[in-house]
Amino acid sequence: MTDGYEDLESWMDTKVGWSNPTTITVAGANLADELMGSVSFSALAFRLVAGRYPTEGETRVFDAVLVSLADHGMTPTAMAARLTYTGAPESLQGAVAAGLLGAGNVFLGVTEDTAEFLEGILERAEGPGEASLSAAAADAVASCHASGRRVPGLGHPVHKETDPRVPRLYEIAAEEGVMGQHLRLLKIVAETQAASGRRLPINGAGVAGAALADLGFPWKIIRGFALLARTAGLLGHLVEEMQRPIGLPLWKLVDGTISARHENGP
Amino acid sequence: MTDGYEDLESWMDTKVGWSNPTTITVAGANLADELMGSVSFSALAFRLVAGRYPTEGETRVFDAVLVSLADHGMTPTAMAARLTYTGAPESLQGAVAAGLLGAGNVFLGVTEDTAEFLEGILERAEGPGEASLSAAAADAVASCHASGRRVPGLGHPVHKETDPRVPRLYEIAAEEGVMGQHLRLLKIVAETQAASGRRLPINGAGVAGAALADLGFPWKIIRGFALLARTAGLLGHLVEEMQRPIGLPLWKLVDGTISARHENGP
Amino acid sequence: MTDGYEDLESWMDTKVGWSNPTTITVAGANLADELMGSVSFSALAFRLVAGRYPTEGETRVFDAVLVSLADHGMTPTAMAARLTYTGAPESLQGAVAAGLLGAGNVFLGVTEDTAEFLEGILERAEGPGEASLSAAAADAVASCHASGRRVPGLGHPVHKETDPRVPRLYEIAAEEGVMGQHLRLLKIVAETQAASGRRLPINGAGVAGAALADLGFPWKIIRGFALLARTAGLLGHLVEEMQRPIGLPLWKLVDGTISARHENGP
Amino acid sequence: MTDGYEDLESWMDTKVGWSNPTTITVAGANLADELMGSVSFSALAFRLVAGRYPTEGETRVFDAVLVSLADHGMTPTAMAARLTYTGAPESLQGAVAAGLLGAGNVFLGVTEDTAEFLEGILERAEGPGEASLSAAAADAVASCHASGRRVPGLGHPVHKETDPRVPRLYEIAAEEGVMGQHLRLLKIVAETQAASGRRLPINGAGVAGAALADLGFPWKIIRGFALLARTAGLLGHLVEEMQRPIGLPLWKLVDGTISARHENGP
Repeated sequence: MTDGYEDLESWMDTKVGWSNPTTITVAGANLADELMGSVSFSALAFRLVAGRYPTEGETRVFDAVLVSLADHGMTPTAMAARLTYTGAPESLQGAVAAGLLGAGNVFLGVTEDTAEFLEGILERAEGPGEASLSAAAADAVASCHASGRRVPGLGHPVHKETDPRVPRLYEIAAEEGVMGQHLRLLKIVAETQAASGRRLPINGAGVAGAALADLGFPWKIIRGFALLARTAGLLGHLVEEMQRPIGLPLWKLVDGTISARHENGP
Repeated sequence: MTDGYEDLESWMDTKVGWSNPTTITVAGANLADELMGSVSFSALAFRLVAGRYPTEGETRVFDAVLVSLADHGMTPTAMAARLTYTGAPESLQGAVAAGLLGAGNVFLGVTEDTAEFLEGILERAEGPGEASLSAAAADAVASCHASGRRVPGLGHPVHKETDPRVPRLYEIAAEEGVMGQHLRLLKIVAETQAASGRRLPINGAGVAGAALADLGFPWKIIRGFALLARTAGLLGHLVEEMQRPIGLPLWKLVDGTISARHENGP
Repeated sequence: MTDGYEDLESWMDTKVGWSNPTTITVAGANLADELMGSVSFSALAFRLVAGRYPTEGETRVFDAVLVSLADHGMTPTAMAARLTYTGAPESLQGAVAAGLLGAGNVFLGVTEDTAEFLEGILERAEGPGEASLSAAAADAVASCHASGRRVPGLGHPVHKETDPRVPRLYEIAAEEGVMGQHLRLLKIVAETQAASGRRLPINGAGVAGAALADLGFPWKIIRGFALLARTAGLLGHLVEEMQRPIGLPLWKLVDGTISARHENGP
Repeated sequence: MTDGYEDLESWMDTKVGWSNPTTITVAGANLADELMGSVSFSALAFRLVAGRYPTEGETRVFDAVLVSLADHGMTPTAMAARLTYTGAPESLQGAVAAGLLGAGNVFLGVTEDTAEFLEGILERAEGPGEASLSAAAADAVASCHASGRRVPGLGHPVHKETDPRVPRLYEIAAEEGVMGQHLRLLKIVAETQAASGRRLPINGAGVAGAALADLGFPWKIIRGFALLARTAGLLGHLVEEMQRPIGLPLWKLVDGTISARHENGP
């Protein structure tokens, strides 16, 4: 026997949930009596991560963020999920997992990167005033430029002028009175970037990250909400794939093109 | 070039979404103007799969189903997600995906199995009346018993008398007037089982599957909602794992026990 | 504390491996002194699953099976892995995992299905003689036809006459004197199918499954060797994707086609 | 139609493989005639990534590296794979994928980090001589110390004096005459670390990364060989899990402990 047993009490625990023959407790509440029928799914998701329930205004912003990230068509992640379903229709969880595995640094990770970037500026700013924030933002943007790193949350390959999700999310946050310092700071960052000579629009992942940081979530978990949102989009793709598959014809197109090219040798 | 190109129009398409420089379309609507701020995340998830929005009563039932499936503590899937995070904290998507991969036939697949089982009875019943349904249910249950297969949706290792999620979901469906034939039939199935001499309670996954089938979802996609719900639970586990890890001490406990046992040879 | 602690000894164990400050034991041997430099990787993989080392002849057949399953070009799994890498280059493990998740029932699962199918015939045959095997095979094939199920291991969408991997693997097994009853039976199954009026060639996954069953592996783990083999192929695809990406242009092709089609409305 | 079609030729290609009705080409060779029965699985894996076959000496080192990384007992990745199998036994690919997803930065990523770290030193060194390398190594180690970063490839929680895999791999590389500059440099790095006052042993993942870099693999793909090796270990765990499961009792132990603790409230 090892020492681990002696202090099991100190680490083998969770506040997420537990159960006994008559009761299931989730997020500190009786699942059947207090949660089912009383709280929405997104409110529970908020509670599971934040440890508190959202206010009504926060709920509308949080739902808007999840809605904004759920899908935007035939992305690499949707294609990967569909191609995985082609080979393994017995395992819907495998197709969803494959879709989520592409939600990494290049696309949805921008939510997290933006939140982390804004946190850093807030920590280094000398005060909460606009002048202090602007100075700290200018330093951070200059530091990105100097190191050749993209400014997180800015720029989009398709929405080169305006990402339509961005003004809408600012509008909703303003309507609900929950515009916080991360959303405000992201605008300052975009203005700083524009002042440097090359205007880049705030992108949808960036504004989502800022809004989630304003709701109080630590940046390390923020990518998780992009995953939650995208799961809904993947289900839409997969139910369609069951009815009108593209995985098989896409494979035939690509493999057929390649095999035809090599027909007479390498 | 292969033949595939000629009829690209016929298969390279989706109704889930697309975008251009100024607009993103998701589920047939303008994402920024019509969806963000107007529909809840669960309503959009419903729409993406069903092709229509839920009514108010359906929304409450749908939210209750997702809430009921989100988590119930330190399950194998939660443990797998946490242990994956231990080794790969750089990839939150990997930890979530690992958690979802365990949501297979043994646990959450019961949602799908129950829906499929009930569909089969409804197809074979001679009419929608209670007598016809009871006769078809009796045949189906007898067939399970004869082949040694469990009756889908019945029985639970912890909730041996009553799974608390079950009466609550029936109550909510009744309140909202959306109790459909799958939920009604599942009760008949449970009564048939009890009449055979061994009463088994309806379980939470089973009642969720029946409720989702009543909402009109095809059984093949129903497991997907369990995955969506569980993603929220996994985020709760992972944010806790960042703060109070159990992956590392659990590993040390298990590996330490095993290594100590073999210290003096195999 | 729960009861589980009392009998930890009975289940918290493994024969795969353990370690202490000076020694690592894997598969019952000293990893550094007895395995590294002495056994090939495929011999260790064989040992980890079978509990014994392969003979020289078995090694050649086992390597040939793994080689035959490693890759055959731009399959759905290779495409899924590459598209996942497009979005998450920070996590090579995610791209490999996404690729493996498509190695399900439709393609590589045939290895397992064939082995299970052959096991079933062997169990039901009245004796090991050719007449008994032929009779049992005829029953099994007829049963597939009656239920509309494909005969596992037969038929291929591209190799309609002969899958080139099949005669070669039979040849190698014969050369090494390790042709067993599964490989022999698979030929009888193919002859039975041909006698029914529609000849179908043995396919590469089927012959691999039969050869692995002949090597003594239980059918439930046989798909695992297809996963091991395919991992090597996926590494080939991913190193190429780093240098000459197809994920991004493939996405642009598909999404561009779809978005263009919907430019003027749904 | 979009522009993408016009230049399909330029990107829709692969050198990994393709097929036609009579022939399968993999890694530039005829799979059935030239590879099966002629090359070992590890030689093919080497070829798929490096674009060339290993020499006999390189094969022995490469096999030794894969053998050294295949497993070392009940690690977090093995536990995650087993717990995933508990819930989804229908999908072996899901359990293997879950196991690989934990092979991230903390454990097996060290192979990649070490290779990248050594590449960086070699690039900055003023020449190939020992004095130049030592100077560049001293700078790199000092830079790690200054930024609080671990020196990649050094230190192990269990093997505090010597990781037994390390001297053995050096020995094999020397025997085969394929000791290259990465392995030599790693020793210099360890000596530099020791000279700083705190000796740390080279670890098994670090020496594997250096050996793979010596074999000519780019550092970005090196983690992939750790994944390939670990897949074999995971198969060993999963075949054992089928026979003597630990997923279920482990879950009961953990969940039972937690539920018992909270029996009388949160």
